[in-house]
Amino acid sequence: MSATEDEMTAWFRGQSRLSPDRFPIGIGDDMAQVTVAAGASVLITTDMLLDGTHFDLQTATLGQVGYKAMAASLSDCAAMATVPLAAVVAVALPPGFGEVELKELHAGIARAADRYDCPLVGGDITCWKGKTPFAVSVAMLSKPAATHAPVRRNGAKAGDVICVTGSLGGSGRRKHLEFEPRVREALKIAGSVTVNAMMDLSDGLSTDLNRICKQSRAGALIEASSIPISADARMQSDPLAAALHEGEDFELLFTLGRDQWEALRRLWDEELALTEIGIVTATDHMEIKMSDGRTVELKPGGYEHLTGEE
Amino acid sequence: MSATEDEMTAWFRGQSRLSPDRFPIGIGDDMAQVTVAAGASVLITTDMLLDGTHFDLQTATLGQVGYKAMAASLSDCAAMATVPLAAVVAVALPPGFGEVELKELHAGIARAADRYDCPLVGGDITCWKGKTPFAVSVAMLSKPAATHAPVRRNGAKAGDVICVTGSLGGSGRRKHLEFEPRVREALKIAGSVTVNAMMDLSDGLSTDLNRICKQSRAGALIEASSIPISADARMQSDPLAAALHEGEDFELLFTLGRDQWEALRRLWDEELALTEIGIVTATDHMEIKMSDGRTVELKPGGYEHLTGEE
Repeated sequence: MSATEDEMTAWFRGQSRLSPDRFPIGIGDDMAQVTVAAGASVLITTDMLLDGTHFDLQTATLGQVGYKAMAASLSDCAAMATVPLAAVVAVALPPGFGEVELKELHAGIARAADRYDCPLVGGDITCWKGKTPFAVSVAMLSKPAATHAPVRRNGAKAGDVICVTGSLGGSGRRKHLEFEPRVREALKIAGSVTVNAMMDLSDGLSTDLNRICKQSRAGALIEASSIPISADARMQSDPLAAALHEGEDFELLFTLGRDQWEALRRLWDEELALTEIGIVTATDHMEIKMSDGRTVELKPGGYEHLTGEE
Repeated sequence: MSATEDEMTAWFRGQSRLSPDRFPIGIGDDMAQVTVAAGASVLITTDMLLDGTHFDLQTATLGQVGYKAMAASLSDCAAMATVPLAAVVAVALPPGFGEVELKELHAGIARAADRYDCPLVGGDITCWKGKTPFAVSVAMLSKPAATHAPVRRNGAKAGDVICVTGSLGGSGRRKHLEFEPRVREALKIAGSVTVNAMMDLSDGLSTDLNRICKQSRAGALIEASSIPISADARMQSDPLAAALHEGEDFELLFTLGRDQWEALRRLWDEELALTEIGIVTATDHMEIKMSDGRTVELKPGGYEHLTGEE
């Protein structure tokens, strides 16, 4: 097939006719927002993780898989700077999976649930008949924080500073199974200054930044030398490409006015690094200034779910 | 493995330490209830459907699968007599699935979403790498109706009348792909009279009635001749066994006081049949009075998800 996940998402968004009163945020952000009553709303996200695609049970434990499944959705809560509320988990078990395996999976789920105060409140357990892969699907609820509205992808403005948390690339080696979703940090950032656009880095910086650009009708200019490259990415043959294009960093990508960025830097007292990597531009494309001084176009090269290619 | 789904659910419930203020209804009902703000709450459920287990893509269309995935969760909303709000859908695509298949699936999802005013607000699309089955997972939100609290499984009282909607058994032939979740009828029933316990019939009458009995610390006596047996079940060698034990009826099973049942019968003007099939007893087991006058113990014989056997 030729359609990318973004093209399909855009098609789904076009098909939906969501009333803004009932659904202030619809398809296309990290979570959708659903009005429950006057002044009360929840946000919801879902992620499916598959053996052989998002983890490999030959090397990962079921505890790690349970943790990752929860942490990926918690990262969506962080992406919009919302407060996690509860999760439900559906699992498809291969033949031979039973009580022991479920309890091991549950231990990982509970580790994330306890750490982020986001309990498991329900689920569904099913066995494949005659087929073998293990799949786990999480749906998670959050609510807006008291201090700020959920932060969307579409608010980036020309001149904004583009920032990321932590360091990027090489997640497939270790981090993708044990990352910390940036829930607390996102709430602190968006609760302290005005953030214009934010998301979590799940499919690679170049792919995810392109999403903010497209939804904000803007472009971006980033500086290669500014990108925080992880130690695991530095062990690869092309560390910059790893930091630009590899998925599952689960760090925050956000844009904000220069004054807000300066204010945030002054107040920031967390261990987690915040790094300015570029600026939002009044163009329709992304560029990157390389270390040799050349500026070249940056294209989304991250993981494309629909083709399964990196 | 030896643990049943019910045993695992009980174990998960035991592990959860949910604050009743934040989670008025936790693990073990058709949906969990999450407090969002003072006086505002949502309910959430999730279901995963697997090719070869819940449907067979050699005979079912993707439109039917999309409809069924939504309808199964809508049936959970009906089971607690709550108002559907929104759904998110995660899909795992086998190699070869693309835009055409996704759009066909979406058409079925949209058919259910439109019919029950429960829009699709988000999702996740992933491709299996080198593995082939198709899986779809739905998470759905609902809210309590204005007229009544969500109806749980644990409120059945000795002396209650046990009722079902529609007719039972033989769903695997046709109905499981095209059933109507009883959302409207459940809201009408629970909005008109006091219902003590309710759920939807997903795993077969004997299995699901046992769940109400166990959670209500009660027993049941049902009358074989009263059970409404579907036309498709009547074509089988043992129609009564089909109506008792086969899954995916997606009808309502509920209990209520005799006076409430009489009141409900008087006001009921819907096409859908309501049938009294027995009474709740002050025992710890289920019995069935057969047409020859004998009364025998009824054991849960429905589909057990964890073993994959019928």
